[in-house]
Amino acid sequence: MNTLTLDEARALDAGDPLRGFRDRFQLPEGVIYLDGNSLGALPKATPGRITEVVAQQWGGDLISSWNRHGWMNMPQKIGGLIAPLIGAKPNEVLATDSTSVNLYKLIAAALSLQHPRKVVLSEPGNFPTDLYVASGAVGMSADATLKTVPGDEIIDAIDEDVALVLLTHVHYKSGRMHDMAAITQAAHAKGALVLWDLSHSAGAVKVDLNGCDADLAVGCGYKYLNGGPGAPAFLYVAERLQERLQSPLTGWMGHAAPFEFGDDYAPAPGINRFLCGTPPILGLAALEVGLELFGEVDFKAITVKSQTLTTLFIDLIEARCGEHGFELVTPRDAAARGSHVSLAHREAYPICQALIERGVVGDFRAPDILRCGFTPLYTSYEDVWRAVDILSEIMETRAWDTDAYRARSAVT
Amino acid sequence: MNTLTLDEARALDAGDPLRGFRDRFQLPEGVIYLDGNSLGALPKATPGRITEVVAQQWGGDLISSWNRHGWMNMPQKIGGLIAPLIGAKPNEVLATDSTSVNLYKLIAAALSLQHPRKVVLSEPGNFPTDLYVASGAVGMSADATLKTVPGDEIIDAIDEDVALVLLTHVHYKSGRMHDMAAITQAAHAKGALVLWDLSHSAGAVKVDLNGCDADLAVGCGYKYLNGGPGAPAFLYVAERLQERLQSPLTGWMGHAAPFEFGDDYAPAPGINRFLCGTPPILGLAALEVGLELFGEVDFKAITVKSQTLTTLFIDLIEARCGEHGFELVTPRDAAARGSHVSLAHREAYPICQALIERGVVGDFRAPDILRCGFTPLYTSYEDVWRAVDILSEIMETRAWDTDAYRARSAVT
Repeated sequence: MNTLTLDEARALDAGDPLRGFRDRFQLPEGVIYLDGNSLGALPKATPGRITEVVAQQWGGDLISSWNRHGWMNMPQKIGGLIAPLIGAKPNEVLATDSTSVNLYKLIAAALSLQHPRKVVLSEPGNFPTDLYVASGAVGMSADATLKTVPGDEIIDAIDEDVALVLLTHVHYKSGRMHDMAAITQAAHAKGALVLWDLSHSAGAVKVDLNGCDADLAVGCGYKYLNGGPGAPAFLYVAERLQERLQSPLTGWMGHAAPFEFGDDYAPAPGINRFLCGTPPILGLAALEVGLELFGEVDFKAITVKSQTLTTLFIDLIEARCGEHGFELVTPRDAAARGSHVSLAHREAYPICQALIERGVVGDFRAPDILRCGFTPLYTSYEDVWRAVDILSEIMETRAWDTDAYRARSAVT
Repeated sequence: MNTLTLDEARALDAGDPLRGFRDRFQLPEGVIYLDGNSLGALPKATPGRITEVVAQQWGGDLISSWNRHGWMNMPQKIGGLIAPLIGAKPNEVLATDSTSVNLYKLIAAALSLQHPRKVVLSEPGNFPTDLYVASGAVGMSADATLKTVPGDEIIDAIDEDVALVLLTHVHYKSGRMHDMAAITQAAHAKGALVLWDLSHSAGAVKVDLNGCDADLAVGCGYKYLNGGPGAPAFLYVAERLQERLQSPLTGWMGHAAPFEFGDDYAPAPGINRFLCGTPPILGLAALEVGLELFGEVDFKAITVKSQTLTTLFIDLIEARCGEHGFELVTPRDAAARGSHVSLAHREAYPICQALIERGVVGDFRAPDILRCGFTPLYTSYEDVWRAVDILSEIMETRAWDTDAYRARSAVT
């Protein structure tokens, strides 16, 4: 049991190679923000960049900005900034649309390529939009079905009927990380493709899509990438598959020659065919700032810090809150989890509200999960220590046990 | 022939009931901006609002902003601001996704509802993304086909096989406006639905969806609505159809209870089922500012000014550039066109470049169209007079006739 003191936590911060990055974010006074896995914090450089894009580029240069300021190529340029974080080549990633829309493009494209295979295989409790979008996509494809089996039975369930395995790499609730290499290899052995949702991985843990020979992936721009609320998402298509896949969302930006304004659709070569509508420039500009910060970091330091932060949190919870009925849902093995830790507790909802009231912002996930995210770029070891200290006091004093906390509306 | 003088143009401006709105936009010194139909100008209130959303809401209130600042309901709230501009009820409109993505949702939903009807009927030369997306959507539906007939033959071509008529209300190139009421009525008589693309209508000309008993519509946020580059688009679904249609893009925001995180998709009641992923807050915030300006206007004044501006432009072109080979592509009848005017000319490309070089920003549309947009909120009669004066001089002196202009890359 780790019973690290506050001074020891501060000493860890002093030795943290990433310590300089905390000051690059605007973090409100008095708040310990453990929800960067839901909405990443604001990089201090973002407001200035957005003002430049809005006032100078849009306001001053108007329509000419599509060329002059490179707006037209932002999905590819920003995709290129995401690529090294997920082990992809720059020409394999686009920043575009939402995670849900990108899921649909790739699920539908994979079902079409894999015809006559008909099964999309996922796990129950996968992030809801993944399952919902999969059900919509299979509904558009004659006889296709969505099948779910528990996460640890996925490999055994892959057979010759499976067109696509659809999994979230780091589970949004439990924090459990799938073995990307093993599942991809097993799927390929049976002729199936795999689509990875990297929403809770990208920017927080090491992902090596190319190294795993991964086929397809999507992910979120507003969590660990710090792109802002509802930021554009990203998609990845392995180079070897790009020309064989066709997005069902055949918008003009995915056309081979969008400004020839011809009547017939012809997909662009390479990754560009997975674009659809006009790029959302304000959202992309904010996302770009979030990503530029990663360009200054050795990514290994992020993975190491993610593991150290989460380990420290788990150890402190067990040492200081061990008697209060929390159950660790997240794998204890640091290599088998992402950068958030989930604790099950019957009273998780009012406990989460009591924490928020005291400046510790984690979140609640139904039915009984208190979820705390640790963002290596800005979460400090002192944050972890203080968060557990406050939680411990809430539990000791039963401060959570009020009707007011139970009645509060959920923070999403 | 109208040979209005500059002083007379200025007198028209002095009497313009909308004259106060020009100062609400940031228009660059020395530029006559006739491309608001491609990218609307920047409202002066936008940078401040965006800074507030970024710095105070995102930066300061972080995840709690989804409730505290109403982020979660922005698609509906902003849809409610668009509704009066297009003759819809507030609960019939959402600001969400791109025009292309929204087209896909509604085309696919209509094909499913109209089964076993199989034909999507449109016109050749419709805005490319409409045709491209339609081809993608019919490709997902067994035996469905996209058929095109010239715009003036649409009504005769609607038969019992037609599931959906897909038309752009104001044609992006010619500016011709379809008769929404007549086509809708003809389609209904044959059991077909109609999907209107309002991208070149909304905010510039009177649209009365409910008055025409319209079924479905989409439109663009970054043209006359002044929402900024790549702004979220909108969609309209008539109340009577909402519960009968199912979007194929079944993302979590369209779920009946997105924060219960259940495995099975259940569409939200009403318009919300046409949401998909997480709302793009920065883009929505900018769009909201653009729309708030319309709340201060009697929309009739916009339609009247659109017609007066375009009529003045056509008259001046004929009076002052009549000998230079321009052909009016846009209908001469003001009630049959939108708020842009297109002139065909063999040398439209270098002429457009020469105009831009002299501060008159219109655009070129392949193969031979010079297109000038007139935004009632900020285009002045003096702008129109000066633009034609500059064009006349370019033509008189053949200033367009340089290899440099021919070689320039297109402004989109």
